Amino acid sequence: MSVNDTLATSAESFFIPVVSVVGVGLIGGSFAKALKNGGHVGCVLGVGRDQASLERALQLGLIDRIATLEEAGKTSDFILISTPASVLGRICDVIGPLLKPTAVITDACSTKVKVINDARQSLGNRVAQFIPGHPIAGSDESGPAAADPLLYWNRNVILTPLPENADNDIKQVRQCWQACGAVVREITATEHDRIFAAVSHFPHYLSAVYMSVVSRSDSASLALALAGTGFRDFTRIAGGSPEMWRDIFISNKEAMLKEIDAFLPVLERTRAMIQNSDAEGLHAWLEQASLARKKWGEGK
Amino acid sequence: MSVNDTLATSAESFFIPVVSVVGVGLIGGSFAKALKNGGHVGCVLGVGRDQASLERALQLGLIDRIATLEEAGKTSDFILISTPASVLGRICDVIGPLLKPTAVITDACSTKVKVINDARQSLGNRVAQFIPGHPIAGSDESGPAAADPLLYWNRNVILTPLPENADNDIKQVRQCWQACGAVVREITATEHDRIFAAVSHFPHYLSAVYMSVVSRSDSASLALALAGTGFRDFTRIAGGSPEMWRDIFISNKEAMLKEIDAFLPVLERTRAMIQNSDAEGLHAWLEQASLARKKWGEGK
Repeated sequence: MSVNDTLATSAESFFIPVVSVVGVGLIGGSFAKALKNGGHVGCVLGVGRDQASLERALQLGLIDRIATLEEAGKTSDFILISTPASVLGRICDVIGPLLKPTAVITDACSTKVKVINDARQSLGNRVAQFIPGHPIAGSDESGPAAADPLLYWNRNVILTPLPENADNDIKQVRQCWQACGAVVREITATEHDRIFAAVSHFPHYLSAVYMSVVSRSDSASLALALAGTGFRDFTRIAGGSPEMWRDIFISNKEAMLKEIDAFLPVLERTRAMIQNSDAEGLHAWLEQASLARKKWGEGK
Repeated sequence: MSVNDTLATSAESFFIPVVSVVGVGLIGGSFAKALKNGGHVGCVLGVGRDQASLERALQLGLIDRIATLEEAGKTSDFILISTPASVLGRICDVIGPLLKPTAVITDACSTKVKVINDARQSLGNRVAQFIPGHPIAGSDESGPAAADPLLYWNRNVILTPLPENADNDIKQVRQCWQACGAVVREITATEHDRIFAAVSHFPHYLSAVYMSVVSRSDSASLALALAGTGFRDFTRIAGGSPEMWRDIFISNKEAMLKEIDAFLPVLERTRAMIQNSDAEGLHAWLEQASLARKKWGEGK
């Protein structure tokens, strides 16, 4: 049995006539392709600002037709908004008044509290049709050419449903992600944002601060020439999209500031250990960190 | 032509009757095996505190015989000290008075200024026979079982020769590493320590501080369950040996403190950008970091 057979048979059978993907890059394109491969959709409309990207997505068979946002709003049964968080409000402004009453909207933004506030403000009562989501998957690559129907295979997708959401609508979003091979979990939006500040946004921030310091130092050119695999892995995330991460940091501001403020005292405490050549203190700290990392690695 | 053929033919022909490796783990074992494979050594003696490790190294053919430090000091033509930096002084105390006048010593420690001071104190005039070195190679694995004669293939090895060193002795150390397939560079010890604080020791420090904070937070268990590939890569180095990194941080204290103190103002500046939702400032900073990382990646 191929992986595609597994995807098709492990997900419950369902069919959605018209699915729209707003932002057809790695995330939206992979979602669309997985649903199409599974035979779960009649037609996928692709919406976006970048015409070349949309044409590439069409050519690759990720979408069936390029559409305007208005058209998608009017005709879709299911809409995935896979754009930067900063534009979700404006998208909801446009589609809100046009939505079919039975349509379901979800998103793929990396923060949830602010996105939900924006959606609530734009959609009013129709926010009941919006089931917030966050697929935990990515790649160094981006754009439609990087789309992969197996991107979500065995990966987590977090839903943070609203009190207004209907159980059936939540179920439909869940089914779509399960059809992509994902493991779907539900937590609160606040919990989501705190957790992803800790395990994703803050590491990205540290990596970017570090990269900006090291690349501007006096001996940057020789230093970078001698940097090895530790440096490579530690800084990989600093190569991410500036637009996306700017939006994430701002939209998850409160949780980010908490992470920074929890980090600083430990930095100061361990700096003092180095300054005092405190071998015992350094060993205890490093051992705890090393064991925690090893334990995590074994669970993966 | 196999890689081993390339190794054998690209290095200048040379032969060393007795080579000793003090500390037969990944680094020392890989060095010994590469030299043996190339036919450059008569006999490799292995010295270490851990009898089981030495026996494993013997069984794997990394060394030809287990020896005491005294024996290695007396009989060797070439000695590689591949132990934690903190014990190099004590090793030199023992072998110093026993050394053949023509013997050459080198090391594989990750810091150079303190190691040179220690060697100078232990060896006295015989420090002329010590050519400090640092192979830039590693692996998640350690111990003799992880040793690989191709570990150094196309990797950098830094030598930081002393004014007292004879050119022929430096040449011999250079030849040995080249026979392992490495690219050998010479810089000053101070420059070495500053650069490796920046591109290796400080990232390790940040990763370990981060890991200790995130693993002790209230929501650690759910957070770690949802952590993805960015987290995996960012924290990989935090899983390293506590003993080794404690020694590195202490022995490279001055350069480490400089890195921490250059990092903090940028952390404070970017924290303020997040707090003020300064989209423009965040974008400019993140773009510079992202471009620097991408440029580095292209050079690799």
